[in-house]
Amino acid sequence: MKNKVNIGLIGIGTVGGGTYKVLHDNAEEITRKTGKQVSISHVADMNVELAKKVVSDDTKIFSDAFQLVDDDTIDIIVELIGGTTVSKDLVVRAIKNGKHVVTANKALIAIHGEELVALAKSNNVILAFEASVAGGIPIIKAIREGLVGNKIEWVAGIINGTTNYILTEMRENRLSFQTALKQAQELGFAEADPTFDIEGIDAAHKLTILASVSFGIPINFDAVYIEGISSLDSIDIGYAEELGYRIKLLAITKCHEDAVELRVHPTLVPEKRLVANVNGPMNAVLVKGNMVGPTLYYGAGAGSEATASSVVADIIDIIRQSEINSEERVPVLGFKPEHIKPKRLLNINEVISEYYLRMTMSNMTGLLARITSIFAKHSISIDAMTQKEVEENAKDVDIILITSPVIEEVMNKIINEIESLPENKNKIIKIRIESLNK
Amino acid sequence: MKNKVNIGLIGIGTVGGGTYKVLHDNAEEITRKTGKQVSISHVADMNVELAKKVVSDDTKIFSDAFQLVDDDTIDIIVELIGGTTVSKDLVVRAIKNGKHVVTANKALIAIHGEELVALAKSNNVILAFEASVAGGIPIIKAIREGLVGNKIEWVAGIINGTTNYILTEMRENRLSFQTALKQAQELGFAEADPTFDIEGIDAAHKLTILASVSFGIPINFDAVYIEGISSLDSIDIGYAEELGYRIKLLAITKCHEDAVELRVHPTLVPEKRLVANVNGPMNAVLVKGNMVGPTLYYGAGAGSEATASSVVADIIDIIRQSEINSEERVPVLGFKPEHIKPKRLLNINEVISEYYLRMTMSNMTGLLARITSIFAKHSISIDAMTQKEVEENAKDVDIILITSPVIEEVMNKIINEIESLPENKNKIIKIRIESLNK
Repeated sequence: MKNKVNIGLIGIGTVGGGTYKVLHDNAEEITRKTGKQVSISHVADMNVELAKKVVSDDTKIFSDAFQLVDDDTIDIIVELIGGTTVSKDLVVRAIKNGKHVVTANKALIAIHGEELVALAKSNNVILAFEASVAGGIPIIKAIREGLVGNKIEWVAGIINGTTNYILTEMRENRLSFQTALKQAQELGFAEADPTFDIEGIDAAHKLTILASVSFGIPINFDAVYIEGISSLDSIDIGYAEELGYRIKLLAITKCHEDAVELRVHPTLVPEKRLVANVNGPMNAVLVKGNMVGPTLYYGAGAGSEATASSVVADIIDIIRQSEINSEERVPVLGFKPEHIKPKRLLNINEVISEYYLRMTMSNMTGLLARITSIFAKHSISIDAMTQKEVEENAKDVDIILITSPVIEEVMNKIINEIESLPENKNKIIKIRIESLNK
Repeated sequence: MKNKVNIGLIGIGTVGGGTYKVLHDNAEEITRKTGKQVSISHVADMNVELAKKVVSDDTKIFSDAFQLVDDDTIDIIVELIGGTTVSKDLVVRAIKNGKHVVTANKALIAIHGEELVALAKSNNVILAFEASVAGGIPIIKAIREGLVGNKIEWVAGIINGTTNYILTEMRENRLSFQTALKQAQELGFAEADPTFDIEGIDAAHKLTILASVSFGIPINFDAVYIEGISSLDSIDIGYAEELGYRIKLLAITKCHEDAVELRVHPTLVPEKRLVANVNGPMNAVLVKGNMVGPTLYYGAGAGSEATASSVVADIIDIIRQSEINSEERVPVLGFKPEHIKPKRLLNINEVISEYYLRMTMSNMTGLLARITSIFAKHSISIDAMTQKEVEENAKDVDIILITSPVIEEVMNKIINEIESLPENKNKIIKIRIESLNK
């Protein structure tokens, strides 16, 4: 690529402003590493006044991003407006114009990735999206390149900073979910409409991308099992802690011989695992390779400059790789397109897991025997059990159980049978456990 | 590169055997990712019988590695014999023969890296050494590529598994250094002659490489300040724990405006940092970028297949990059050669740190006043202080102090003055502290 590289930036918001700052403030450092001058020559934003404030005078500003995408003097387009409609049209047009594209847009890649990757290939341009997963952590590079010699067995990550911040506050300061959410919104860790984050959708978008680059399967967002944290009770965070666990919103994908698991849900993790100690808005991804064993990658999963760090890494990767024959380049999804093979996706009922259960019961003679006999009937062991008085009503008890591994369908049958016992007072709380040691 | 890639492997020991296994067992997975068939076509080892046992019948075996290096049918040479003499001659000859070279040899790169990097450049071949630092963790790739948009401010790592295993055992099981070392040797975590590991030399080799790729400075092993763990007393591990710290052998490099720090020594780390909770033989490297903030990389720092995972990643990187114009490739040391600039190396006396001090004193009236007045005279604050009875002699006390940041030269003056007090019984124990939060 030529010595002066022109970047066209679409969207000058949080990450866009960060990208401008990284390329501007670290310009000399980047030249030391690449031998090139890399700068944002063009910006498109509907808020032209904002753009003028952020960028330097010699940057050309468009209010219409389609004009920017058509500008012949731009080498690489960076899409940072989010969403899946206009952003898609822009990326498609950029690719058709023969431009390399960098995006931080996980929804776009999770939903339209297959189409965009194919389009990039047929136009011989690079599509890059390191910033779409886990912000500043170079996790896609680690999987596609650093662990390329491995068959990846599973990936488990804290890849949503908002929910990790909320869970940390719920545990450390014994806040309710609602109070912790409100605090997160006040501090800018959660958006006014937090649905995508707290219901696990954002994490599911990212997980879809991780699964594809880890196992060589198509990007398949619709198949993810998703459970958020909005109905999580802080009482369970406390009980989990007493049993030596932390509750995290984990995004988990595992590759079996004939099928793949894709799921996002609150999860008990043994407190001695590093990932259990990732607190506040930080992210971490644990990757198990068949040769290297477990490796973990930790850092800021969001934020202006942290995310921009990954955008700029993609830009420089493109500069370094643009002149390679496209057959030799790192494949966009880590695997050569002809070797990407769909795998059956496990239904959540087929997943094997250990479980944390909390049940509120009238404390009648023989209660524990009746509960444990239901487990015995289904040949499932109980690994730990504690009984707690319920403060509001001394006649009731909370019984907390940790099960041995069991298929979810059987777990649900056991739960139904226990819920039918006359002593049962409420719906049983069920939270999955991941030991992360295999 | 052609579709069938021939690897010539020198040394079929632990990592060599692992490399054979990774390329053999994961052959199909690697073809899915690269479109190539990558296999070890040639092996050289003085133990020809061993080689015959490990590799398949169609692999050509040499007892003389120089013959392998001269074989025209080999595309990439992998050097895994260690040492800095024969290995250097082999790597030099391979490069002069126009072969790309992969090595896991930290001593070779730390001591002869400058010469070898220059030679590789003038011969237009790639020299790669991901496996030389932190085994299976793709840390060099993370710094050179994943964080390329950042100015790296500092790096702090647990990059020697032997010492981390020993320190973990000393803490968890209250073993002495000697007992823990013996146990490590029995379990294969320490070599018969453990000097390189326990005295910090191995970590210093690796740190030298990390500093070069992080800051764009020449590889300069001679300048590292090195202190091992062999004189560490488990009593200090216990006191540190009471104060909320773990003791780790940290390899630390920091980049200042006009100088660089390079040091390996036992270090108190606050227990709430993830790196403080990296136990057993595992490694972890914390990298602070000016834009992304702190990021951490964790995994197996040694072992046959884990280290081989990095060797194979380098092989595939070479396959993907070999046909790029050498000016566009990722530079071997992360920075373009003409932009690598030496920096002054701080003498350890100039380093600013917080300190843990332990002093054994006769418990005389006014003792604490005399000690604290010495600190006050030098305008240094004491952040924490505890006094413990010495079990063997009730008249003596251990006084443990945590200081505020102070330049080492001043710290040593203060220590000398306290050691001159008539109450002082022993040499004062001084261990540096890193908060790792800036």
